[in-house]
Amino acid sequence: MNKPLWSGRFNTEVDPLTKKYTRSLHVDRRLAAYDLWGSRAHVRMLAAQGILSQEQCAAILKGLSQIEEEIRAGRFPFREDLEDIHMNVEQRLQELVGEAGSRIHTGRSRNDQVALDLKLFCRDAAHLWQLGLIRVEESILDRAQELRGEMFAAWTHLQAAQPLSWGHYLLAFAEMFGRDFQRLAFFRELHCDSPLGAGALAGSTLNLDPEFTAREVGLPVGFANSYDVVGNRDFVLELLQIATQIMLHVSRLAEDFIYFSSTAVGWIELPDPLCTGSSMMPQKKNPDLLELSRGKTASVLGHASAVASLLKGLPSSYHRDLQQDKEHLFPVFEIVKDTLEMLPVLLSGFRIREERARAALKEGYLLATDLAEYLVLKGVPFRTAHERVGRLVNYCIENGCGFEDLSLQKMRELIPELDEKAAEILKTENVLERRRHKGSTGVASVEQQISSWNQRIQKQHLLLSQQKLVVEEDFSFG
Amino acid sequence: MNKPLWSGRFNTEVDPLTKKYTRSLHVDRRLAAYDLWGSRAHVRMLAAQGILSQEQCAAILKGLSQIEEEIRAGRFPFREDLEDIHMNVEQRLQELVGEAGSRIHTGRSRNDQVALDLKLFCRDAAHLWQLGLIRVEESILDRAQELRGEMFAAWTHLQAAQPLSWGHYLLAFAEMFGRDFQRLAFFRELHCDSPLGAGALAGSTLNLDPEFTAREVGLPVGFANSYDVVGNRDFVLELLQIATQIMLHVSRLAEDFIYFSSTAVGWIELPDPLCTGSSMMPQKKNPDLLELSRGKTASVLGHASAVASLLKGLPSSYHRDLQQDKEHLFPVFEIVKDTLEMLPVLLSGFRIREERARAALKEGYLLATDLAEYLVLKGVPFRTAHERVGRLVNYCIENGCGFEDLSLQKMRELIPELDEKAAEILKTENVLERRRHKGSTGVASVEQQISSWNQRIQKQHLLLSQQKLVVEEDFSFG
Amino acid sequence: MNKPLWSGRFNTEVDPLTKKYTRSLHVDRRLAAYDLWGSRAHVRMLAAQGILSQEQCAAILKGLSQIEEEIRAGRFPFREDLEDIHMNVEQRLQELVGEAGSRIHTGRSRNDQVALDLKLFCRDAAHLWQLGLIRVEESILDRAQELRGEMFAAWTHLQAAQPLSWGHYLLAFAEMFGRDFQRLAFFRELHCDSPLGAGALAGSTLNLDPEFTAREVGLPVGFANSYDVVGNRDFVLELLQIATQIMLHVSRLAEDFIYFSSTAVGWIELPDPLCTGSSMMPQKKNPDLLELSRGKTASVLGHASAVASLLKGLPSSYHRDLQQDKEHLFPVFEIVKDTLEMLPVLLSGFRIREERARAALKEGYLLATDLAEYLVLKGVPFRTAHERVGRLVNYCIENGCGFEDLSLQKMRELIPELDEKAAEILKTENVLERRRHKGSTGVASVEQQISSWNQRIQKQHLLLSQQKLVVEEDFSFG
Amino acid sequence: MNKPLWSGRFNTEVDPLTKKYTRSLHVDRRLAAYDLWGSRAHVRMLAAQGILSQEQCAAILKGLSQIEEEIRAGRFPFREDLEDIHMNVEQRLQELVGEAGSRIHTGRSRNDQVALDLKLFCRDAAHLWQLGLIRVEESILDRAQELRGEMFAAWTHLQAAQPLSWGHYLLAFAEMFGRDFQRLAFFRELHCDSPLGAGALAGSTLNLDPEFTAREVGLPVGFANSYDVVGNRDFVLELLQIATQIMLHVSRLAEDFIYFSSTAVGWIELPDPLCTGSSMMPQKKNPDLLELSRGKTASVLGHASAVASLLKGLPSSYHRDLQQDKEHLFPVFEIVKDTLEMLPVLLSGFRIREERARAALKEGYLLATDLAEYLVLKGVPFRTAHERVGRLVNYCIENGCGFEDLSLQKMRELIPELDEKAAEILKTENVLERRRHKGSTGVASVEQQISSWNQRIQKQHLLLSQQKLVVEEDFSFG
Repeated sequence: MNKPLWSGRFNTEVDPLTKKYTRSLHVDRRLAAYDLWGSRAHVRMLAAQGILSQEQCAAILKGLSQIEEEIRAGRFPFREDLEDIHMNVEQRLQELVGEAGSRIHTGRSRNDQVALDLKLFCRDAAHLWQLGLIRVEESILDRAQELRGEMFAAWTHLQAAQPLSWGHYLLAFAEMFGRDFQRLAFFRELHCDSPLGAGALAGSTLNLDPEFTAREVGLPVGFANSYDVVGNRDFVLELLQIATQIMLHVSRLAEDFIYFSSTAVGWIELPDPLCTGSSMMPQKKNPDLLELSRGKTASVLGHASAVASLLKGLPSSYHRDLQQDKEHLFPVFEIVKDTLEMLPVLLSGFRIREERARAALKEGYLLATDLAEYLVLKGVPFRTAHERVGRLVNYCIENGCGFEDLSLQKMRELIPELDEKAAEILKTENVLERRRHKGSTGVASVEQQISSWNQRIQKQHLLLSQQKLVVEEDFSFG
Repeated sequence: MNKPLWSGRFNTEVDPLTKKYTRSLHVDRRLAAYDLWGSRAHVRMLAAQGILSQEQCAAILKGLSQIEEEIRAGRFPFREDLEDIHMNVEQRLQELVGEAGSRIHTGRSRNDQVALDLKLFCRDAAHLWQLGLIRVEESILDRAQELRGEMFAAWTHLQAAQPLSWGHYLLAFAEMFGRDFQRLAFFRELHCDSPLGAGALAGSTLNLDPEFTAREVGLPVGFANSYDVVGNRDFVLELLQIATQIMLHVSRLAEDFIYFSSTAVGWIELPDPLCTGSSMMPQKKNPDLLELSRGKTASVLGHASAVASLLKGLPSSYHRDLQQDKEHLFPVFEIVKDTLEMLPVLLSGFRIREERARAALKEGYLLATDLAEYLVLKGVPFRTAHERVGRLVNYCIENGCGFEDLSLQKMRELIPELDEKAAEILKTENVLERRRHKGSTGVASVEQQISSWNQRIQKQHLLLSQQKLVVEEDFSFG
Repeated sequence: MNKPLWSGRFNTEVDPLTKKYTRSLHVDRRLAAYDLWGSRAHVRMLAAQGILSQEQCAAILKGLSQIEEEIRAGRFPFREDLEDIHMNVEQRLQELVGEAGSRIHTGRSRNDQVALDLKLFCRDAAHLWQLGLIRVEESILDRAQELRGEMFAAWTHLQAAQPLSWGHYLLAFAEMFGRDFQRLAFFRELHCDSPLGAGALAGSTLNLDPEFTAREVGLPVGFANSYDVVGNRDFVLELLQIATQIMLHVSRLAEDFIYFSSTAVGWIELPDPLCTGSSMMPQKKNPDLLELSRGKTASVLGHASAVASLLKGLPSSYHRDLQQDKEHLFPVFEIVKDTLEMLPVLLSGFRIREERARAALKEGYLLATDLAEYLVLKGVPFRTAHERVGRLVNYCIENGCGFEDLSLQKMRELIPELDEKAAEILKTENVLERRRHKGSTGVASVEQQISSWNQRIQKQHLLLSQQKLVVEEDFSFG
Repeated sequence: MNKPLWSGRFNTEVDPLTKKYTRSLHVDRRLAAYDLWGSRAHVRMLAAQGILSQEQCAAILKGLSQIEEEIRAGRFPFREDLEDIHMNVEQRLQELVGEAGSRIHTGRSRNDQVALDLKLFCRDAAHLWQLGLIRVEESILDRAQELRGEMFAAWTHLQAAQPLSWGHYLLAFAEMFGRDFQRLAFFRELHCDSPLGAGALAGSTLNLDPEFTAREVGLPVGFANSYDVVGNRDFVLELLQIATQIMLHVSRLAEDFIYFSSTAVGWIELPDPLCTGSSMMPQKKNPDLLELSRGKTASVLGHASAVASLLKGLPSSYHRDLQQDKEHLFPVFEIVKDTLEMLPVLLSGFRIREERARAALKEGYLLATDLAEYLVLKGVPFRTAHERVGRLVNYCIENGCGFEDLSLQKMRELIPELDEKAAEILKTENVLERRRHKGSTGVASVEQQISSWNQRIQKQHLLLSQQKLVVEEDFSFG
């Protein structure tokens, strides 16, 4: 067994309880790739500043490369008794390159080291989520194009409200995911300083060059204040907050499609890969993946809430409580990434059961608003128009009929201002044509939205091509 | 690859995305032991009701025993492609005992099956936590006995308030953990019905006997309403709510001891196993385990919050969202169990640095209240007494002295009602003797508390000896 | 302007910022009735112990009565500059009865005072919620009796699963609310000690009798440990946790009924008082109250989460953070109380649209499980039966028909074991009769549940008649 | 009593239960000023598009002005029976200007109306918080300048770590609040589209011009998708998420200062306005406002959590659940605003108790790291240096002395590489000088930070001068 690297100060062996309760390796080993990057940058800086010799630097870099190979090949001897990923790497380095390895931690503390690793991880996570969001937006765009003229009985309060174009419906979600994309872009802008060099809290008496290190890890700037960065987990919480928004959007989409595809509604058929069966009931085809995405949303909310609670009332500077953030960050990373992969399967694959979806357009007096607005054009004050059409609806309900079942004469009894054009107003097929202004469900508006989205997505691709992953995905997130 | 057991209804192979997104085996394999128990009970009931033959029953029971052995020995062939632990067991059973294995799921659904497994797990978890709480209470009692007459400068608002006995201080936490124990006992009382037999939601057309099954798994009663139990996760949430309370108590204790042992305060020295060092600063001995327990409290809050969000707005009956509860339940189980193991190390092992702790009793005018109450005994209305002593304190602060530095004459200038007995009042060593009523910090009160706690703990042991773990700890929670 | 009662120690006037930031009167004035009760009890105890004279005691009690009258009549001069309700009462008392009023705070601190007030409030709240829950259960029972034989197409995963009796459906919610009732009963059992006498943290040097005080406020026992009670808010959090469970049950019920009454489903019609209209769309009748109850569930979750966060990592003893609990407790009290009043309107008033609800029983192959279980009775292993019926379902879907559209011959091609009794199995009207075991949806089971609930409710009434509100509802919660 | 404006469709009066349960006026009346702005913009657009005549428009605008006057003067007849602020305004308008008032709701729904009001409110709130943050930063800068060369015994894990400049310490918080400022700026950038014109969900058949309306309310752009905006509360949640970050920073600052000023530590004295006294203990001066700010942080966490839960699993489009968001938004607005006003009082007013703060620099071997780094400069590998100094610390602890109590010779026995310069290293007064790199605690670094902050604050002022409040603060937030 190895002694911990801080054992000089202690007189006793480390207690098994201590190891069990403080262990984080099972979680933070996923930071290995980032730890290697940070260590390379640090060592190069130390050499550039003359704190290490070129030979020492070269030896360490070689050792780090070997460690990377070992990790990639699954041969790295991870040791739970070495606490965390950082100590595992440093110890292995000493085994591989001897005394030079004992110099890698010069002018560095685990406090600034883990702050760097985490920040790089979070920035890469943001990048990968952005990629996922683009794919979702692209799926939406394809279907919106296809379905721009196809209507369904849209609701407010889950009560039939007005006919809506499926294309318009889908594009609403493009707006939501588009906002999420922008927040991630801003996230990467805001959290772009490198913590390395901050040491335990105060910086170092050695002649470090934190800007050099920053450049080496691909960050534009070094930290402004050492005390701030060692205790800063704002970026972890912020990423979880953005994940919350993303997943809330997903959960609302999932809720819709679970409703759409429920037996009693039946407007759409879900793609088979999103469904599973029942162990008892032979006929079932259940929307399990959508339900899970809704459930995972709750998980993300809980994880974000945990990290906020974690930071509440903590004194400034580094405290071990912070270790716990990774238990919440990593599962959220997976959930968002997997969910964004699942959505295109839904969006590309759902099939509208046209007969049922169209039949529903006949129920719920969906054209009542159009009728009231028609009265407005005839000079009736809107509030009066609203009330008159309300009474017409009541009449129809009491008589178990639709607007279209009434003669013009009958309708005029209740609404004298109506004329023969009312029949045109009450044709569902005219709804999309009648709504012409920007942002409405009309076909022209939907086409304009699609064209505008094509440009937005191009810009998003451009942005991503300029951003760089620190660690390629298969290594860091495998 | 095996087809899922519900594949009859589907025309296609299961998509890899589906498997990845729905997999729960990595989490719910910890339910294996409970699943085996439930299956045994179910099969015996089916045989007793004549739905299975005795031979079929015997074959299945033998197969289940073999599966148990395989799991215990680490030889069970867990297969991710079989979704969950339930399907893994059923599939393996078919391999081991052939056609009889195809009968085990008769009159059962995964919905009632997992509801049973989870409930049994939660009840065992409650039992194990109760055990941990007793050990914590016992550690407290030992130290309270030892330290009943030793005082420190207790606070409100972290400002010196009044001298308090360390024993009294510790017993306050016994009260908290004692309440937690009672909630767990009530938890086991409330959630004592067996879900098995509820089927998917409506019960079965077969002649099941749910009361028989309940007895077999050690529960006093079968379910009252099948539709309730298949969607019921109240007990999961409730257990997490109790865990929240337990951990909040822990976090307050941890906060105290981090403060007590902080360099600037230094009233106590933590046991070495609760501390680790720094990778950069050679002199550090940090209270990592207490900080982690505080951080893990935040985790538990987040997990409880996730499960509440999960259930919010879910339609009644079973939905796949519910699978997600296990991602939150299991980590909480570990955290509480490990933390309750850690606390006795703290409570038995902390050492009071007497010189520093006692010196602090001189600061902060800790006897001001005693002085005011002495004036009350002399007939001064309390509000007047309070104000006069307040002015005396101000005088002392302005003159940089303590009460004990003033002559009686000087004091009488500010508080005319004072007499020569004031000197006795202002001796810290008299504080504990002066507080005589029940529940106060006086020595007699503390001794009475200890004696009452000795009886409570005996009763707690008795209760636990009457409760039974369904699955012994090393198997289920190994 | 009055100086605060603790101003002796301070040299300056209270800053307006201080007043604004610390004010709680707008919130805690709702504790007035409890504060008066506690003060009466305290003063009587002081007199019984000879700390106050009988005359002083009588004067104070008279003053408190006058204050009560003033509050009831809306004439009490609440003053924001006096911080909180406690200081307002004490100050007013001094105005009304002079020097005796300056003695009321003898041997008392706001710390134990507010702990008592809050605990009494919470216990009364629990009582009132229990009352509300009984009314909800009674509404359920009435409808369950009426609808025990009426079926609908129940779901799992919102996909048609099996026919269920509406009565059985409703009784599932009785189980949920019944558990809530029991938790509240346990809550009152667990939190039954009186904090008064604990003082600021250590008890008093005066000869207090906390057991006397406890009896006076209707609590069975005085506090066990003064340090515990002054910082104890377990009961506030626990009440919010129970509220969380209650509201989660409500939110699931609301979700169901929003779905049931959504235009596209249309199985039930909501009572008008639960709905409102639209400002723009004349035809709308929206289930606003149910949606609000779902939204208020989220509020309750957040409030509970706030109080848990509040306590996390707080040092032991009293800290001003605790004041914040009331901002979360009081709104939750209202929400739960109002919601439990709303539910009987829903439960008594919803109307089943029988034609639509029954039509849905024809969709979704609801009898597939019954068919599979029938095969089991014929000796087919369940797993085989499940697969065969699954294939039958597939055949029907491909041919756009139901089971009932197939000839026996056709069915036997796919499932050779079927015989002529299959036709009986496939009649929906036989479903309830076929399910005979306890807890199932069968009519006998539902009737047995109702009879058992009648007894439970009687016991609940009995319990409530033995419990006593400290303050009658119209005064404290007006 | 007035009928609701949607009463045409209903046959009955509104039930008192309905009114009680749905009422929001007590909360949303704070949106009055925004509602008036939105209504003005809407009416001007209707006139510009020829949907209203100029006369109708002028009449309505005059009515709205009168309503504004009535509200400002406290004379507006708010009516609970009119549900919400929107209906109150519309109804009053009809009373004031007759038929023209019945036309104001033309082409508008409460769905887009409230979405606009809320967004404008949130944007103004962000602006006001930014203003508060600047003032906090300015307070920090002043004290950082003053205290840049004054040291204290900074911690990690609350254990003495290294000497830190008070200036550097304070500037760490400037970084935190600076990030909050940037997030608010981005918030305003992201949420800058006007919802008005989206109607209930689909837009209008009338010839609306949403871009015109946007310009009128000071927003750069109209909505892109009507269906998105009516159900969009992303911006409410996001503002609460930013508030969470702000308050977490505050809570950490508060925790520090509560510790600093606790009796046992005593490094600083809090300004009197942040403290209150005790009702029982005459000597107390408690940091109530800081504790409250920590408690209010928990409240904000809970409110943010509530809104996230609210949105989870909600179908797309408008649902009445959304009303509940305001119960959480408004208190958070107050908390953040009030807290940011309180902080400058703390930051400008705290006084360092120099004797005690400096004495603490002698404890805890604060220069151990400097010593280890000195060895590094002598060529000792850092890991070796760390271990040797660790042993030196142990030696000192065992002998109850500090580094400075050892002779050079003694030290060399344990660390042979030490030379006579060690004495310089072990002088605390040299610490700040030795740390020279950017971002460290050295004086030069602190001065550079201050100068950089002066520029940042100028830019922040510039930004705010370009932003515009929609409604002046005293009207909207009075």
